[in-house]
Amino acid sequence: MATSGLSQPAFLNHIGIAVSALPQLAQLFQILGLSFKNQEDVPEQGVRTHFLPLPVVQTQLEFLEVTDPEGTVAKFIEKRGPGIHHLSFQVKTGELDPLCATLRKAGYRLTYDAPKKGAHQMRVNFIHPATAGGILIEVMEAQG
Amino acid sequence: MATSGLSQPAFLNHIGIAVSALPQLAQLFQILGLSFKNQEDVPEQGVRTHFLPLPVVQTQLEFLEVTDPEGTVAKFIEKRGPGIHHLSFQVKTGELDPLCATLRKAGYRLTYDAPKKGAHQMRVNFIHPATAGGILIEVMEAQG
Repeated sequence: MATSGLSQPAFLNHIGIAVSALPQLAQLFQILGLSFKNQEDVPEQGVRTHFLPLPVVQTQLEFLEVTDPEGTVAKFIEKRGPGIHHLSFQVKTGELDPLCATLRKAGYRLTYDAPKKGAHQMRVNFIHPATAGGILIEVMEAQG
Repeated sequence: MATSGLSQPAFLNHIGIAVSALPQLAQLFQILGLSFKNQEDVPEQGVRTHFLPLPVVQTQLEFLEVTDPEGTVAKFIEKRGPGIHHLSFQVKTGELDPLCATLRKAGYRLTYDAPKKGAHQMRVNFIHPATAGGILIEVMEAQG
């Protein structure tokens, strides 16, 4: 295997998201406690970029390898090919149920009526991409 | 607008990526100085998850609003709809050109022959998703 010639590991500068309805996303992230900071035109790439800084934490890439050909990830790959699947945002234990209620009230559709058990002893739910600018967003809390 | 009822902003626990060829991605991230740590089966979702921790830094979401209907982001939305577009990894200034050479040597296809100017005074290039498990990965360095 090739090895890194870098003096330090590459770090995640940002996650790029193509948008068509920014206000809907701005409200969603406001509910998550996050807000836009600055914008910049990049005429070379034909876009205006809007930046939303995230809290500084240890985050990770989670690679999803299919074990059940009937599962939702298998269906995703079948339909769109492999690639970035979702963003997962965690809140403090005890705050997931009120968050889901707030999201529903604001018109965001959730996958489960009540959060289910995910990896790493988490309770999870998903905001449907149709109501979140095409992004599949997982919301989670550690089991209390 | 609805406001957050959270005691602290939600944080990015992880970025989920649907994979069909894990070894190709493992080599790519090894070149970026990053490696897998642990895995866990989640039979409820029909997947085996492989986690790759990222360096702890201030990262951000970058929302790309189309200003040029002929640009690459406009074409992306036209073809796949809005949603997550790319992950951007930054290296130390002076290390982007050697990194691109290493990537090419290992068989990864890059968009530009030489890095171009992006937002925020960065030099950027892109690894083609066809050689990176369907993920569009931007590699960048701050201009020296």
